[in-house]
Amino acid sequence: MNSFGEIFKLTSFGESHGVAIGGVIDGMPAGLEVNQQAIQHELNRRRPGQSEIVTARKESDTVKILSGIFEGKTTGTPIGFVIENNDQHSNDYENMRSLFRPSHADYTYSMKYGARDHRGGGRSSARETAARIVAGALAKQALAKYGIEVFAYTSQIGDIKLEKPYTSFTSTDVDKNVVRCPDDDTAAKMIDLISKVKASGDTVGGIITGVVRGCHVGLGDPVFGKLHARLASAMMSINAAKGFDYGMGFDGVNLLGSEVSDIFVKNSDGEVHTSTNNSGGIQGGISNGEDIYFRVAFKPVATLLRDVETIDTQGNNVILHAKGRHDPCVLPRAVPIVEAMAAMVIFDALLLNRVSRI
Amino acid sequence: MNSFGEIFKLTSFGESHGVAIGGVIDGMPAGLEVNQQAIQHELNRRRPGQSEIVTARKESDTVKILSGIFEGKTTGTPIGFVIENNDQHSNDYENMRSLFRPSHADYTYSMKYGARDHRGGGRSSARETAARIVAGALAKQALAKYGIEVFAYTSQIGDIKLEKPYTSFTSTDVDKNVVRCPDDDTAAKMIDLISKVKASGDTVGGIITGVVRGCHVGLGDPVFGKLHARLASAMMSINAAKGFDYGMGFDGVNLLGSEVSDIFVKNSDGEVHTSTNNSGGIQGGISNGEDIYFRVAFKPVATLLRDVETIDTQGNNVILHAKGRHDPCVLPRAVPIVEAMAAMVIFDALLLNRVSRI
Amino acid sequence: MNSFGEIFKLTSFGESHGVAIGGVIDGMPAGLEVNQQAIQHELNRRRPGQSEIVTARKESDTVKILSGIFEGKTTGTPIGFVIENNDQHSNDYENMRSLFRPSHADYTYSMKYGARDHRGGGRSSARETAARIVAGALAKQALAKYGIEVFAYTSQIGDIKLEKPYTSFTSTDVDKNVVRCPDDDTAAKMIDLISKVKASGDTVGGIITGVVRGCHVGLGDPVFGKLHARLASAMMSINAAKGFDYGMGFDGVNLLGSEVSDIFVKNSDGEVHTSTNNSGGIQGGISNGEDIYFRVAFKPVATLLRDVETIDTQGNNVILHAKGRHDPCVLPRAVPIVEAMAAMVIFDALLLNRVSRI
Amino acid sequence: MNSFGEIFKLTSFGESHGVAIGGVIDGMPAGLEVNQQAIQHELNRRRPGQSEIVTARKESDTVKILSGIFEGKTTGTPIGFVIENNDQHSNDYENMRSLFRPSHADYTYSMKYGARDHRGGGRSSARETAARIVAGALAKQALAKYGIEVFAYTSQIGDIKLEKPYTSFTSTDVDKNVVRCPDDDTAAKMIDLISKVKASGDTVGGIITGVVRGCHVGLGDPVFGKLHARLASAMMSINAAKGFDYGMGFDGVNLLGSEVSDIFVKNSDGEVHTSTNNSGGIQGGISNGEDIYFRVAFKPVATLLRDVETIDTQGNNVILHAKGRHDPCVLPRAVPIVEAMAAMVIFDALLLNRVSRI
Repeated sequence: MNSFGEIFKLTSFGESHGVAIGGVIDGMPAGLEVNQQAIQHELNRRRPGQSEIVTARKESDTVKILSGIFEGKTTGTPIGFVIENNDQHSNDYENMRSLFRPSHADYTYSMKYGARDHRGGGRSSARETAARIVAGALAKQALAKYGIEVFAYTSQIGDIKLEKPYTSFTSTDVDKNVVRCPDDDTAAKMIDLISKVKASGDTVGGIITGVVRGCHVGLGDPVFGKLHARLASAMMSINAAKGFDYGMGFDGVNLLGSEVSDIFVKNSDGEVHTSTNNSGGIQGGISNGEDIYFRVAFKPVATLLRDVETIDTQGNNVILHAKGRHDPCVLPRAVPIVEAMAAMVIFDALLLNRVSRI
Repeated sequence: MNSFGEIFKLTSFGESHGVAIGGVIDGMPAGLEVNQQAIQHELNRRRPGQSEIVTARKESDTVKILSGIFEGKTTGTPIGFVIENNDQHSNDYENMRSLFRPSHADYTYSMKYGARDHRGGGRSSARETAARIVAGALAKQALAKYGIEVFAYTSQIGDIKLEKPYTSFTSTDVDKNVVRCPDDDTAAKMIDLISKVKASGDTVGGIITGVVRGCHVGLGDPVFGKLHARLASAMMSINAAKGFDYGMGFDGVNLLGSEVSDIFVKNSDGEVHTSTNNSGGIQGGISNGEDIYFRVAFKPVATLLRDVETIDTQGNNVILHAKGRHDPCVLPRAVPIVEAMAAMVIFDALLLNRVSRI
Repeated sequence: MNSFGEIFKLTSFGESHGVAIGGVIDGMPAGLEVNQQAIQHELNRRRPGQSEIVTARKESDTVKILSGIFEGKTTGTPIGFVIENNDQHSNDYENMRSLFRPSHADYTYSMKYGARDHRGGGRSSARETAARIVAGALAKQALAKYGIEVFAYTSQIGDIKLEKPYTSFTSTDVDKNVVRCPDDDTAAKMIDLISKVKASGDTVGGIITGVVRGCHVGLGDPVFGKLHARLASAMMSINAAKGFDYGMGFDGVNLLGSEVSDIFVKNSDGEVHTSTNNSGGIQGGISNGEDIYFRVAFKPVATLLRDVETIDTQGNNVILHAKGRHDPCVLPRAVPIVEAMAAMVIFDALLLNRVSRI
Repeated sequence: MNSFGEIFKLTSFGESHGVAIGGVIDGMPAGLEVNQQAIQHELNRRRPGQSEIVTARKESDTVKILSGIFEGKTTGTPIGFVIENNDQHSNDYENMRSLFRPSHADYTYSMKYGARDHRGGGRSSARETAARIVAGALAKQALAKYGIEVFAYTSQIGDIKLEKPYTSFTSTDVDKNVVRCPDDDTAAKMIDLISKVKASGDTVGGIITGVVRGCHVGLGDPVFGKLHARLASAMMSINAAKGFDYGMGFDGVNLLGSEVSDIFVKNSDGEVHTSTNNSGGIQGGISNGEDIYFRVAFKPVATLLRDVETIDTQGNNVILHAKGRHDPCVLPRAVPIVEAMAAMVIFDALLLNRVSRI
């Protein structure tokens, strides 16, 4: 229940204010030369405190790899790793013990398990996603060997939309600014909006677009393991995600079949392509070699910097006084998480595809 | 790869024009009194030829249960079943053998497996979903024991939107008309649109809304097995699905956190509820006892009743002449499939929840 | 719970006196040319009524394949199949309904599930193994492509032991006689013993030896998925199996490490081998290229052709009067089952090994 | 591939001479009060250096739990833990880099993965089993809540056999002496034998008997998940295990069915039992409430304290000069591992059994 993947599989553990979080990556094939700095770089992209528009919490998020890599290469054995929790401030959360924050997991965890680690959300904290970043960073390095690149970017914050299509951008455009929108003008508007929302003690949501370039033909399975079903599951498992679509997605429902069919063409090299890509690079659940692109909707998160009404564990009405340091908008830090989960899905599908023919 | 579920698990098999399709349902607990007519009723809701706005193909879709039910009750052993393919007309498809239909799975299957059963889409045909209907019908019957009801309905066709919220409807409203939109006025417009699209040899997409009422608190798992991630995976595994969202979904991205927080309230019976339900009945991946609601976007399907350009397996340009009998819009027949997949997810989560406490 | 395998996976269904038994084989790669007669041949080797020393029940055990094979080749999609139950005689078993046969599964099934299909053992009947034969036969055909051969034979019945080692035999020796002991002199003694035991209304156990020749180096996983752990699980899942060992097995406990070390040698072709094979072809859970050999102990089955004391479902003492047609010794018919399960394990491990390196 | 269990699942990681070993225990239900000292106690029973008859290596084997336990109780979230490797002495193993020790995993790992961590066996070292001890200790604590006890003991070393049956002993007898044979006279002979073998630089094998007392009726699944198949897989995954049997086991093959049937009796409390227990507490794969007992055969391990011939990675003949500190007999330290694996299997089956009825 805390594992993701079929062959390339992450099992994560850890609460936000326990000793450490971490995980085990099973199924990484042997022989991959690992760039450990690149893993840390991805963690730094998710790290709190990286800019003015994200939470001011300080966590170094330093990963320590415990096994599975020997003399710089993967050995085929499981890769265990830990990230210590430095900034625990557990006492900050004592007032959370006996109340349920609205639109959080406090109530549901307590009802399911009979109790919960109330400090900072415990297991429901987005801190857990740091473990996914580690696995995703390794998946990215493996995919690079096969010429496959995964990237994501912020394409909407509140009502500020990036109008340019994904085809306008490459992975190198993502980190040009702190909101991770590859168009600087739109980014400036987004940053401005987040700053205002933050100042008012509120939060705002948005959309992240993910892209997979260079994906081989044949990844994904026909029925339940459709590549986009795997991506949907991956994306919807990210904290605050509320929606997923791919290719023409929700926008396609207004169109006619004759408007959206992707006609096959053979290019001058004899390669088969489609002249349009409404399918989003996946047909019948299997990649067709075109770019895969998808969107993930994130809600405005529930932790406000203002007082909110709620109930305590006895059902009494109480006022939750805001304190702590929170993200007014999770998207800038969620971009690398979307990338990580997508990379895990694609690499897993690539490995699974090795057993599709005798 | 052809299985769905953790405890309550369907493994399906079968091509649209092979001998039969079918499946094995493993993990159905013992002791459920089974209404076999109700299973057939659900199959009839998905069956081709049921109205003027769906394909005219004739399949009786009669399920034959081979095991796992004894003297009217489930025994705890696997339930094997088959549905014979009556209307095979395989020769109709001989022209498909050597070409790739646009926006279909023909190309990707061929590339992945080196060959394919080209007759009517083979395994990629939506005919496979009949097996899901059987498993879903059993899950529905099990859920009814726990007071949980799952239903779905057509909420958009092309640009015709049902404006009333899901709270206006119950399961008994769904089958009032052939398009399965519970509001008759909107349904009439939808039927009209589909008829026009059909007449022009084209296809149209839309949105299905799914609802789970009476869901117990505590279903779903914290991280990768979030209840909405399971639903997303289930829905995106349905043929022609392009998007999924739940609760406020994509519409929530424009709103502020302060606008969407679901405040907890205690009702007169001492039960905890939320005064609004932007969360869609799931918080932190776990059901909170409120209604679960979600949307699934379906594309206009690619099989047109007009000639289309495409390529053959050698890469030559060819014209695919329309023939056969196809759905101008898949949504009316997809409603029971959405219900079936949702029922499977919820029942599986209910069983899994039995091991959450010592 | 009714599935076996990781990649190449059989899910079986069916009770001995229901409509049919069958299964779904998922994960068979595309492109294997299938010899359907060879599948039926394996079923015939397991079939009741094949000789004087096995049960006289008549079942044609004809397999009907429903999907996954097209124009003589596997397509990569799941292979569904059924075997109808012809010789149901359900009324023969009416007296079983309310009593628990000693050393059978009647009591435990009833306690676990609250009820059971009492006819002929229902799901606990060895009839279920016919589904494994089908999957095993396909695995054998796939393994043959890789030069790997799996066979098994009866090496002990009661106290009649075959003294010659497995190295004396090949797969062609197995079916020389009805007891499936490859040495005719020993076989004659075994047949004689079984005949006497049968005449006295009793049953007798024995040992089956399994062999894998031509196994590639590298199959199996280091820790929980050791190749011999997979074989042990496979063999112990066969009805009436009570023990498993491999290589030197239980006999090795009396020996010293210096006596049993398998020294590596390089042969004239430059291939690495071991000069002895006490390891049984597996070291550290991974195949080393030598022959794999193992033993499976089978108990004398509990269904006697004489009256036995037992209790009914109310706990009253009753006498169970023998009737029906039963095997005095299951080993002759269990030989193909051991082969089938071993073939499934080895082929699955071969597929899994494709993801061991980047 | 490095996970064990269906619901209660351990994923282990770590090489013997890496930074640390550890694991993640997923599926532990919430609400279990955890005795951390008892976990450490079990680790101490497996620890090197605990007596004269085991390896003199020094490892403190101190477990550090990182998550999943809050204020003394399990929370239902995954339990991550690490055990640091203190006594690394990696240079001791430099000579192992380029050679393959006979009857070890060196050759097979290298062939499978293209390389290996050669230090002390890396992942193939029995050091990995410390992670299983942690999970097993938690399973034992959970089972105690249900009145179920798991224990194991040394029943044979070389040709010194304990003649008394398992019914003579309880869990408190196991640790009376360093060889963990509950009969002091037999234990003295075993210790003497191991001492002699050690003095000669050799190793010796033996048999461990495992017992489960108080097991509820109904654990285990009918077909592939038979309780004894799960136990077999568990036991055969332990380093140096070569064989497994349960109940009458291999000894039953010489007996007649009429001699071994376990007749049901109703005792004065109205409980159903069997008058004998040749079935070993499992019938049809499902526990019947009687004691479960089984045997595991261990080979004399291959690491001798004398020079042995072998080949290097180039295939040249070389002499491996003994050094390091090794176990002349693994059984005394394997007893807690057998217990741990059995506890994991039984607890997992107990949880799975919660979904057997509607």
